[in-house]
Amino acid sequence: MLKSMDDLFLHLVKDIYYAEKQILKALPKMAKNTENADLKQAFEHHAQETEGQVERLERIFKMLDKAPRGEKCPAILGLIEEGQEVMDEGEEPAVVDAGLLAGAQAVEHYEMSRYGTLIAWARQLGLDDAVPLLEKTLEEEKKADQLLNRIALDAVNRQAA
Amino acid sequence: MLKSMDDLFLHLVKDIYYAEKQILKALPKMAKNTENADLKQAFEHHAQETEGQVERLERIFKMLDKAPRGEKCPAILGLIEEGQEVMDEGEEPAVVDAGLLAGAQAVEHYEMSRYGTLIAWARQLGLDDAVPLLEKTLEEEKKADQLLNRIALDAVNRQAA
Repeated sequence: MLKSMDDLFLHLVKDIYYAEKQILKALPKMAKNTENADLKQAFEHHAQETEGQVERLERIFKMLDKAPRGEKCPAILGLIEEGQEVMDEGEEPAVVDAGLLAGAQAVEHYEMSRYGTLIAWARQLGLDDAVPLLEKTLEEEKKADQLLNRIALDAVNRQAA
Repeated sequence: MLKSMDDLFLHLVKDIYYAEKQILKALPKMAKNTENADLKQAFEHHAQETEGQVERLERIFKMLDKAPRGEKCPAILGLIEEGQEVMDEGEEPAVVDAGLLAGAQAVEHYEMSRYGTLIAWARQLGLDDAVPLLEKTLEEEKKADQLLNRIALDAVNRQAA
């Protein structure tokens, strides 16, 4: 049960911990399914970044004196399922790439919203040591999204040329 | 199968059409489950807005010469499931409200990412009449997210006072 804001904060930390681990599994598959070198590199780089994000969450579990444990996050499973669909059903590399880019951006937006919420709640709960860790991850997610935006635009321009 | 960018665009229009209809069903439940008058009003207002967003998507189906039909969107089902969890498990009104706010913001972020992608693809495909409709909805989603941010902050400040 969610009795207090502390419970809710821990619940969301577990949710995003589960999500990051799912993303960590999905990214290599996504990198394998694109022929766009920039996109492949972006996925590989973000997989490394995600490992650091998982570690930051483990530090937060420690601050809360809890064992790091994920909690099934239906939202990320749905987002990843949509990306899988595009890999399964896309016939042209350009179509697969466009779908992968869109899927990855939807994941980034999910994470940005979750980390934004966690930062607000950590401040509210006086968990001052957690705030900079969450902020660092949020910055990484924003940058990842911007990079995906640039790659998408480049791909469109290249096709138009 | 997704053979072309046209297929992918239609696929995503169907996905977000399904998502908007799910949101339309969820919002009244969310409004009923909060005791925060501002939040209740925000959910009710956004339900009205969502009806207009559904109509805009129907105009886009018409432009594409397709019957308006949704396609199951696992991501939105996951997001809504997470919101439902908070309503079921939250014990204090302040906890339920914080969870509802966070859930609604995650939904807004999902939609912002999807409409951003649709705008880029509509431009790429020369669907010039679809672009302003999608942009109008994207603006509404951004404003809805900003309003939720303000309500969250007010709630925290009120509790602190």
